[in-house]
Amino acid sequence: MGEFDLIERYFKAPARAMQFNEVVALGIGDDCALLQPAAGMQLAISSDMLVEGRHFFADVDPFTLGHKALAVNLSDLAACGARPLAFTLALSLPKVDEAWLASFSRGLLALAAEHNCSLIGGDTTQGPLNMCITVFGEVPKQQALLRSGAQAGDDIYVSGTVGDARLALEAMRGNVSLTADAFTAAKKRLETPTPRVNLGLALRCIASSAIDVSDGLLGDLGHILKQSQVGATIDTSAAIHLNTINFIAAQAINTKTTTQLIPQLTSQNQLQYVFSGGDDYELAFTAPVSQSQAVQAAALASKTPVTRIGQIEADLGLRLINAKGQSMPNNYGSWDHFK
Amino acid sequence: MGEFDLIERYFKAPARAMQFNEVVALGIGDDCALLQPAAGMQLAISSDMLVEGRHFFADVDPFTLGHKALAVNLSDLAACGARPLAFTLALSLPKVDEAWLASFSRGLLALAAEHNCSLIGGDTTQGPLNMCITVFGEVPKQQALLRSGAQAGDDIYVSGTVGDARLALEAMRGNVSLTADAFTAAKKRLETPTPRVNLGLALRCIASSAIDVSDGLLGDLGHILKQSQVGATIDTSAAIHLNTINFIAAQAINTKTTTQLIPQLTSQNQLQYVFSGGDDYELAFTAPVSQSQAVQAAALASKTPVTRIGQIEADLGLRLINAKGQSMPNNYGSWDHFK
Repeated sequence: MGEFDLIERYFKAPARAMQFNEVVALGIGDDCALLQPAAGMQLAISSDMLVEGRHFFADVDPFTLGHKALAVNLSDLAACGARPLAFTLALSLPKVDEAWLASFSRGLLALAAEHNCSLIGGDTTQGPLNMCITVFGEVPKQQALLRSGAQAGDDIYVSGTVGDARLALEAMRGNVSLTADAFTAAKKRLETPTPRVNLGLALRCIASSAIDVSDGLLGDLGHILKQSQVGATIDTSAAIHLNTINFIAAQAINTKTTTQLIPQLTSQNQLQYVFSGGDDYELAFTAPVSQSQAVQAAALASKTPVTRIGQIEADLGLRLINAKGQSMPNNYGSWDHFK
Repeated sequence: MGEFDLIERYFKAPARAMQFNEVVALGIGDDCALLQPAAGMQLAISSDMLVEGRHFFADVDPFTLGHKALAVNLSDLAACGARPLAFTLALSLPKVDEAWLASFSRGLLALAAEHNCSLIGGDTTQGPLNMCITVFGEVPKQQALLRSGAQAGDDIYVSGTVGDARLALEAMRGNVSLTADAFTAAKKRLETPTPRVNLGLALRCIASSAIDVSDGLLGDLGHILKQSQVGATIDTSAAIHLNTINFIAAQAINTKTTTQLIPQLTSQNQLQYVFSGGDDYELAFTAPVSQSQAVQAAALASKTPVTRIGQIEADLGLRLINAKGQSMPNNYGSWDHFK
């Protein structure tokens, strides 16, 4: 099967069936796609590239890979409070494996359909497995959530759970051992992260700044601090509850199961995964104290738990404290693809 | 040098210095870039991925590679008659080679500056060398040049020269031998193609259809025929003059140089390169006969030669004729990455 037939069957034909919104004036099939944003709207744009061996293992389920390739991009739209509209997909494939492509396409387009996000163009070529998605969303002028808006006194929040993806990765590498339930839960978070699009939309005009947590919580929070020219204090006793595995362990204890779920997991490396795990695709954001009820209402409306983990301060730098308010060392680096 | 420093030095810092237009509301440095198209404008979007060993050789000059990575995308905007605004760059690199990056960045940003096209975001990761650019342009509503607008009776034109890039490739592969001058000219066309942006802009409201010639002239013209539901007859005696090497040979003869420039090049494989060479980044377009003077004026205004090579007809299919109007066989395939 040639390149053109392949594109037609697995991408173009389904794409024509999923023109979800009126902003897409012309979809797949010409030299360019055409978007026509509504009056007063800005177009939010983000691009992410996923590479075999770096972002995923060669034997990963192609359905979950299709999901994740789009999810990591939708997560960037979420962090800006933008509503998903459309995306392009550039795909480099070692060979034409129809079963693989069919599954990849299903995973990708299922998440696209969930968010009314139309596939409007792209490119296919032969080469080492690599996928690059560029995603487009809309946000009313002046309402985009930026990294630069945090103010001293603002509360710092994190959505959902963080550290699970890293825990799954370390378990797959044999560095920690988990029960089957815990591993399944963590692996699901690694392979099919949920982009917090609805939370991002609900936080428009409430949050003062936001960022997508993809390279590790503290490192990404550092971008907010730098661009807002502020500092922060983080309460590690609040943050340590941010991972799913704790939640599962707590459930197990509550239901009188005595199994030790995390035999090798100390509170130290739990914090390590929470603070610098990476691959989380949650939102870290700030909001004025006066908006704390509005934040909880946004969390409720978008069915996304949020946890307050600290406060923005005028003093530059990032400080960690324990439950007693005592200072703790910050040894948590950020993910760097070249280190 | 880490990933973040690298991005800062070679991409972010220069990008901040080159915010060329008011449509870019927010450039590089947040989760998303923000574009604010002017009223009545549509956003034209295209994405292309270049892979080592497939689109370029490992030892290619990184400056020309930077140029070409953007040029092939600008060529898609040109084919739609869109004015370049901005682009994102996703880059997978085997390692951090500063000399390579500095040169790649210079080549990329020099062409960007020439077209007032701002780098607004992207991604960097470690992996086999791969670059994916998504480009954004603007075009007034209803004025985009599409593949679907050709009408029976329209003239068919091609800009500049085609077949040179393939000739250079075959010379590099040792399949044809060229004089140094001819090889230099052909290699320049392979490595630093000129996107026909100004011609595309000048053809708004004149051309009835257009396409970027990247996979071979006849194959790409076939997309216009299919999407316009028409056929065409191409005059091979006009088309054979479309390549630079002929032009150089003609010059050599005119200046009484007796050197045989193209020892192994027959008119048959000359036509092969012209019709199915690939990597040309010229425009193939159609226009009503009533617009023939306007087409020549657009060519003159944009300083881009155009050649009439045939005519659109109601009868489906693509027919080739010689100078005497006799029918010729069409054995010219299109480029397929998986064949």
